[in-house]
Amino acid sequence: MSLPTLLVLRADPPPRLGRLTGRVRVRYADESALAAELPSADVLLVWDFTSDAVRAAWPGEGRRPGWVHTPSAGVDRLLCPELVASDTVVTNARGVFEEPIAEYVAGLVLAMAKDLPGTLELQRERRWRHREVLPVAGSRAVVVGAGPIGRAVASTLRALGVRTAVVGRTARPRIHGVDELDLLLTRADWVVCAAPLTESTRGMFDARRFGLMQPSARFVNVGRGQLVVEDDLMTAVAKRWIAGAALDVFAEEPLPPDSALWDVPGLIVSPHMSGDTVGWRDRLGAQFVDMFELWEAGRPLPNVVDKKRGYVPVHD
Amino acid sequence: MSLPTLLVLRADPPPRLGRLTGRVRVRYADESALAAELPSADVLLVWDFTSDAVRAAWPGEGRRPGWVHTPSAGVDRLLCPELVASDTVVTNARGVFEEPIAEYVAGLVLAMAKDLPGTLELQRERRWRHREVLPVAGSRAVVVGAGPIGRAVASTLRALGVRTAVVGRTARPRIHGVDELDLLLTRADWVVCAAPLTESTRGMFDARRFGLMQPSARFVNVGRGQLVVEDDLMTAVAKRWIAGAALDVFAEEPLPPDSALWDVPGLIVSPHMSGDTVGWRDRLGAQFVDMFELWEAGRPLPNVVDKKRGYVPVHD
Repeated sequence: MSLPTLLVLRADPPPRLGRLTGRVRVRYADESALAAELPSADVLLVWDFTSDAVRAAWPGEGRRPGWVHTPSAGVDRLLCPELVASDTVVTNARGVFEEPIAEYVAGLVLAMAKDLPGTLELQRERRWRHREVLPVAGSRAVVVGAGPIGRAVASTLRALGVRTAVVGRTARPRIHGVDELDLLLTRADWVVCAAPLTESTRGMFDARRFGLMQPSARFVNVGRGQLVVEDDLMTAVAKRWIAGAALDVFAEEPLPPDSALWDVPGLIVSPHMSGDTVGWRDRLGAQFVDMFELWEAGRPLPNVVDKKRGYVPVHD
Repeated sequence: MSLPTLLVLRADPPPRLGRLTGRVRVRYADESALAAELPSADVLLVWDFTSDAVRAAWPGEGRRPGWVHTPSAGVDRLLCPELVASDTVVTNARGVFEEPIAEYVAGLVLAMAKDLPGTLELQRERRWRHREVLPVAGSRAVVVGAGPIGRAVASTLRALGVRTAVVGRTARPRIHGVDELDLLLTRADWVVCAAPLTESTRGMFDARRFGLMQPSARFVNVGRGQLVVEDDLMTAVAKRWIAGAALDVFAEEPLPPDSALWDVPGLIVSPHMSGDTVGWRDRLGAQFVDMFELWEAGRPLPNVVDKKRGYVPVHD
């Protein structure tokens, strides 16, 4: 019996696949070699999940892997019409990023409520200036995105006493439908975007929606940069339509050094790291190895993406 | 029947005492006039709770107020041997600061775990530099101070999944005695000081105790500056005995512009504001008015300080 072939889209450091020794033939490809290697692979591990190479290489001739795994929550960089239409199973890294991202969002909310950026700036100037800060308990948040990350964010905010609504594509028990979003925005202190990037969510946070928010509201994006019309957000923060924002994701990453987003007063810019707690790469590698063993045994895979919707649905 | 006299140690803005109109004779004194006014006062409201004037003015001749209220949690600035020995009842502002301070500490813990100060510094330099951050859930905290503030801090940290031990003067159910502190320090990721300042706690965080902590540990002080030997803390942070610290309180406040504490890398300095959420002064004034009405009716006062111990005991 011949060994299955696992093709890895290369990123440094490589995944730890030692547990699979002798059970799989591993081939590494960089972006340029991906198209040529695809026809001979049974499984594709998109270890460089920041790459758009799969979407570029997939269309074309030849056999295709039956299973594609991305060690990320979002699958937007992967899906092209040919992959969506194919029989190939796509899986994601559900389970790894939820709690870290929830903590990161809670940290941003508390830091903004307590004006930690202002404190650090005054400290640099050796200035003692007492300010009044905001309570977090009793404030209101709207979390957009009803997947596991959005739900984890809501759960952590609620643990801090924040009255938190979760918005998903359609209304379900304890989840508001997107048709209720505009009304919720008008009374939120915190608006957190943790939605998947799909054709229906792209650019959903635009001037109109920022205009609905309270002047005291603050916006946090840990989803994907393209969920936000960045120029509109800059206007909203710079002109004080809203009180502040924190972005961990951007339409272009790394954010170019000459981007105007770097120095909007009241806007916190971080380098797409909200989910990346120490050891995260090892956890992603171990998760893939666990899933590979299920695949090898012919058992059903977890975290299967609904390719038409563009995310892994939560079954309530 | 003559009206009782309420003496207010003046601070701006003044307390809102309108509800007591016609029921009390209010006199305002600044620090220099306090000693002369004390003999004719029935009640003293130490509205300027940052002042040491009561301790200076109290000893001396004449009648003294039967009740002294300070709109703060700590009573260390107030107590002198003559006041401790007297029949005068001392009360504090228990109930106002607990939740705000707990949120503030949680914000500092999360900000340090997620390296928000590093993010803001890199943002100023327009540098995209991904880092791995620390998880908070599952980490260990020691909260020193088993009063309502320490307990609120512990409760909020536990809500974030932090395994939190509380240390008080003596061991009780769910509270560790101070004799267990050293051992707890050796395995804590977060050490939070929320203790009252008394003769037995002054300087309790010194080189020896910072030396017991892990190199990855971080220290937060929201109690009183004098609980910490500030030079020892500076050494501990500057020489990386510990990974970082955040101080909201200082031996001298405002912290002088030439203090070396302002620019120790890894040390966050904030201007004694952890408990001061918008509207805090009004809440402190309203609390005093409520207590005044109890006093007027001859009913027992809440928040009575054990003057020998130097704080309001919690009855478990």
